[in-house]
Amino acid sequence: MENELTREFLERLELMIENEDSMAITKELEDLHPSDIADIMESLSMAEAKFIFDHLDDEITAEVLIEFDEDYRVKFVKLLSTEEMVGQISNLETDDAADILGEMEDEEKDEIISQLEDKEHASEITDLLKYDEDTAGGLMHKEFFQARAHWAVDRCVVELRRQTEDVERVYTIYVVDENDILLGILSLKRLLFADPKEKIENIYNNEKIQFVKAHAKAEEVAEIMEKYDLVSLPVVDRQHKLVGRITIDDVLDVIKEEAGKDYQMASGISENLEASSTVMKNTRSRLPWILIGLAGGVGASQIIKGYEVQIDLNPALAFFIPLIVATAGNVGVQSSAIIVQGLASKDFQFQGLFRQVGKETLVGILVGIICSLIIFGINFAIGGDILLGTTIAISLFLVVVIAAILGAMVPLLLDRIKIDPALATGPFITTANDIIGLTIYFVVAYFVYL
Amino acid sequence: MENELTREFLERLELMIENEDSMAITKELEDLHPSDIADIMESLSMAEAKFIFDHLDDEITAEVLIEFDEDYRVKFVKLLSTEEMVGQISNLETDDAADILGEMEDEEKDEIISQLEDKEHASEITDLLKYDEDTAGGLMHKEFFQARAHWAVDRCVVELRRQTEDVERVYTIYVVDENDILLGILSLKRLLFADPKEKIENIYNNEKIQFVKAHAKAEEVAEIMEKYDLVSLPVVDRQHKLVGRITIDDVLDVIKEEAGKDYQMASGISENLEASSTVMKNTRSRLPWILIGLAGGVGASQIIKGYEVQIDLNPALAFFIPLIVATAGNVGVQSSAIIVQGLASKDFQFQGLFRQVGKETLVGILVGIICSLIIFGINFAIGGDILLGTTIAISLFLVVVIAAILGAMVPLLLDRIKIDPALATGPFITTANDIIGLTIYFVVAYFVYL
Repeated sequence: MENELTREFLERLELMIENEDSMAITKELEDLHPSDIADIMESLSMAEAKFIFDHLDDEITAEVLIEFDEDYRVKFVKLLSTEEMVGQISNLETDDAADILGEMEDEEKDEIISQLEDKEHASEITDLLKYDEDTAGGLMHKEFFQARAHWAVDRCVVELRRQTEDVERVYTIYVVDENDILLGILSLKRLLFADPKEKIENIYNNEKIQFVKAHAKAEEVAEIMEKYDLVSLPVVDRQHKLVGRITIDDVLDVIKEEAGKDYQMASGISENLEASSTVMKNTRSRLPWILIGLAGGVGASQIIKGYEVQIDLNPALAFFIPLIVATAGNVGVQSSAIIVQGLASKDFQFQGLFRQVGKETLVGILVGIICSLIIFGINFAIGGDILLGTTIAISLFLVVVIAAILGAMVPLLLDRIKIDPALATGPFITTANDIIGLTIYFVVAYFVYL
Repeated sequence: MENELTREFLERLELMIENEDSMAITKELEDLHPSDIADIMESLSMAEAKFIFDHLDDEITAEVLIEFDEDYRVKFVKLLSTEEMVGQISNLETDDAADILGEMEDEEKDEIISQLEDKEHASEITDLLKYDEDTAGGLMHKEFFQARAHWAVDRCVVELRRQTEDVERVYTIYVVDENDILLGILSLKRLLFADPKEKIENIYNNEKIQFVKAHAKAEEVAEIMEKYDLVSLPVVDRQHKLVGRITIDDVLDVIKEEAGKDYQMASGISENLEASSTVMKNTRSRLPWILIGLAGGVGASQIIKGYEVQIDLNPALAFFIPLIVATAGNVGVQSSAIIVQGLASKDFQFQGLFRQVGKETLVGILVGIICSLIIFGINFAIGGDILLGTTIAISLFLVVVIAAILGAMVPLLLDRIKIDPALATGPFITTANDIIGLTIYFVVAYFVYL
């Protein structure tokens, strides 16, 4: 933890790899967390990373595979033979195994699964592969501990001990009936202090038990775990049969991706883009948004062209085009960001559209008045053209208010009709505001200079 | 969970409150999670909320207080007498109690603490209040279970049972020496299966134990817990004495705030703004960014003014000002967003500045070529002025490339000198790009029309 990875460390490691000094490498890395080893390997060349991989214990390398970035893992896994992959997959929990296999070609995937020695493990993985990765089924794992309601405490302890190797971290015991239907939960602490002869059905908790259906969306899972501060969550099928468990660490990524998704949309990036993505993926993902902006720019040019007469009469009008469009854009982005965040955190579930739009309108009016006064003041102070100053001040006010209202309304409306409101932020809102802003500006100019 | 809160439910509840039918209210709410009750109360009037609060059990209301949004809680707590607050605080865990008290006036806070009956609870809360809320000390609570290394397993179980009411969720037992120095951890599962006469010191785990110092930043805590998939994390003081425990649910908010912070910055919002914040707080928080944009707009007007001659000669040049500035802005925002996200997720810890900037340059060149060709093609197709088309195409290309490079470089450089790179996104980058873009546009025009 205090052990920051330094460039010197990397260089020392590279030297060891060059000298094929596997003893030194093992010694250097064996005390590190797999997550740190993954970081190190990702910053070396593929050949160097493979060398390290070959000289680490299988239990460690399996964990390292999981800690890789997805893009990197897909590349790295190609270096491994089917036999090597079978070894790695055997050492992984079902959900991690399914995640990695899910990224591979069907043929290769089937080959690896068929070669797994532990047939139960293999069938559990196959089962998990059926679920879409964005659902509860895609997040869950098969390693959980279930106790039958009719068991006594001492039998439960024996069974728990027997199954314990499978279950990485037991927080809660799930209590089921003879048909595996989820009845409730039992904390480990409760079990620890119970009379050995007591029946589980007399001590377990069946009130307000949180669970999800296997086909529930990943975001719904994240929401429930967050809202109710849960560390693990049981997953049931349509018959309410217990089929898996989701732990909070699997959901952290969903929570972060959700937060990141809004930011990406607002910045005009489609697809799931990362800093490590290729130039081509970057370009493909970003171009559509730039083209929307470009189309907006062409539209804007036609509007200005329509008011060419005004510009001919007073060329200074052209000077303030960027000021108008930039301010409209900034205000719109702010309003939409606040609404999108509020929708994401369910801040105003009950307050309705009108109240939020009303508030944004008030904020817009305040900001608009201040901006207009400042611009009018500056223009007056430097002895600028009073008509120009008036035009800018009036249109700035109108543009700010309208941008604030639109910025708030569009995401709220999109959310109503079940479209991701974050779509309204970024390029769309700025482009719309550019066009509306320019129109207002020149219409005001038309009347002021009439 | 399946129980979505509906408007009908709220109206029924309001009717019960009007009729002062406290029995019905208790019946309706007693099975709900405190988090749901908090949502319901927040969507009622203050008087209605207070009525509900008065008719619920103290243990529930304390939890409800914690689930309120901070802004709402500060308002709601003002409705409660000192005696009522003493009752609520007694029912809360130390960290939650400290959070609520930390939001109150000093005088009121001291009064409440002095009236707490449980003096140990009072002194633990006082201790927590010393820490800044953005540090590990501010996140931790005092309810954890520690076992002395020299204890036997059976003594440990007895002590655990004795202290168990205090500790809401035991995941891990912290093992300390006689001076409370943290030695390692022991899982509950391990304890469950150990021989009752075995010494703790022989079965606990002291390898690769993660911990934080009490003065560590909240973001550092989140990073460690995320990276190593931890559910709880021990907190030590400067002498390595165990002083508290942080659980993952306390850190989820930090993780989300971190993610939200970048988005807020990129959208031009300072302070910690929420959808539920007041109009004044909204205006205060948003105005600075709008004023930056406004200053940029004034700067842009001066640049255009410097090229007034060009516009006079060819007024059509003015038409494409929004196209140039909007495209520069969009490209810059994309580049900076990707870099900021990459920095936040530590995606390119070792790859260095050059590689990222190089990649952004390539993306910029590709996007720039495509945009230029499209604009030149459209202009040609509609039989537009060839000189104008050339000017726009060349400057668009240059502007896109430079915006991509700047968008990548500025956050990387800010990060190097330890300034939050997200500052570079949003208004700053768009304003800078506006000015640079316009300059390029008119310089190109100057040479094309020479």
